[in-house]
Amino acid sequence: MPIILGVDPGSRITGYGIIRVDGRQTEYLDSGCIRVGQKPMAERLQTIFQSLALLIGEYRPEEFAIEQVFMARNPDSALKLGQARGAAIVSAANSGLAVHEYSARQVKQAVVGTGGADKSQVQHMVQALLGLSRKPQEDAADALAIALCHAHMNQSTLKLAGVGGKVRGGRVRRQ
Amino acid sequence: MPIILGVDPGSRITGYGIIRVDGRQTEYLDSGCIRVGQKPMAERLQTIFQSLALLIGEYRPEEFAIEQVFMARNPDSALKLGQARGAAIVSAANSGLAVHEYSARQVKQAVVGTGGADKSQVQHMVQALLGLSRKPQEDAADALAIALCHAHMNQSTLKLAGVGGKVRGGRVRRQ
Repeated sequence: MPIILGVDPGSRITGYGIIRVDGRQTEYLDSGCIRVGQKPMAERLQTIFQSLALLIGEYRPEEFAIEQVFMARNPDSALKLGQARGAAIVSAANSGLAVHEYSARQVKQAVVGTGGADKSQVQHMVQALLGLSRKPQEDAADALAIALCHAHMNQSTLKLAGVGGKVRGGRVRRQ
Repeated sequence: MPIILGVDPGSRITGYGIIRVDGRQTEYLDSGCIRVGQKPMAERLQTIFQSLALLIGEYRPEEFAIEQVFMARNPDSALKLGQARGAAIVSAANSGLAVHEYSARQVKQAVVGTGGADKSQVQHMVQALLGLSRKPQEDAADALAIALCHAHMNQSTLKLAGVGGKVRGGRVRRQ
């Protein structure tokens, strides 16, 4: 029953979502936002790093999934997003988690069924798939969607592996 | 006698330079490059984070200085540079170091005397100022220049503080 931590990093708000996967079942464990908007830059990054380290210590996930960034809007926001991503990834890697990346398209395809879905559709499907009583906040929903995407991809790959292929070390390092 | 760690992060090569400052004297302690060019992204960031943590453990610097990025070339390289910066800054902040940022112009001004100096002039002056027997590698020289810039700025601020002003907590948080 692997536990997956999905993270949607940002320079102001980093969403996180934690799910447990048992065969075809997925169970919601936790989600939320790490808000760092008002602090100096180094403190922001440290807060992202430490908050994720605390969550990893609490839930002991085996897998870490994060959205791949293909085309950032502009160099300045790309740099800030990169810094937040770097802090998040290092927190996971430093805790021994395997890091997996998925494109926004893959995440939407896995959760909504179409790569062109909008944010409110993602929120709606995350709520439905995890049987939540209310819609998670936008960044938390994105993070849960990334975790669900990883669960789905892992599932497909393991199924394929069972038929004919082989997954190196039982894990898919990168999609 | 504060010890300063200067870092010039990059997605392939991260330069570092460590100096000790005693009044107006600066002493070279170490410098080098963390090369991560061939590894998967998460491993690259982890290597930057851990290598700096090891150096911090060995030399116990009190201060950490890094170049401020004003205008990255393009969104893709800005994202990669941001990730490397994030890993480096989190490593320093997580070890309790104060993080200081300086623009490339400030660094060149402090070391060469002109904000428009080129890389070979920086290498030359770093060698001369620290009395090194040979030119440090380019990224290592940049990192040493950043550390020297911080020593210089700190010096000026402390001098000013001695005259009339006051430096909060004996430290300048951001320049």
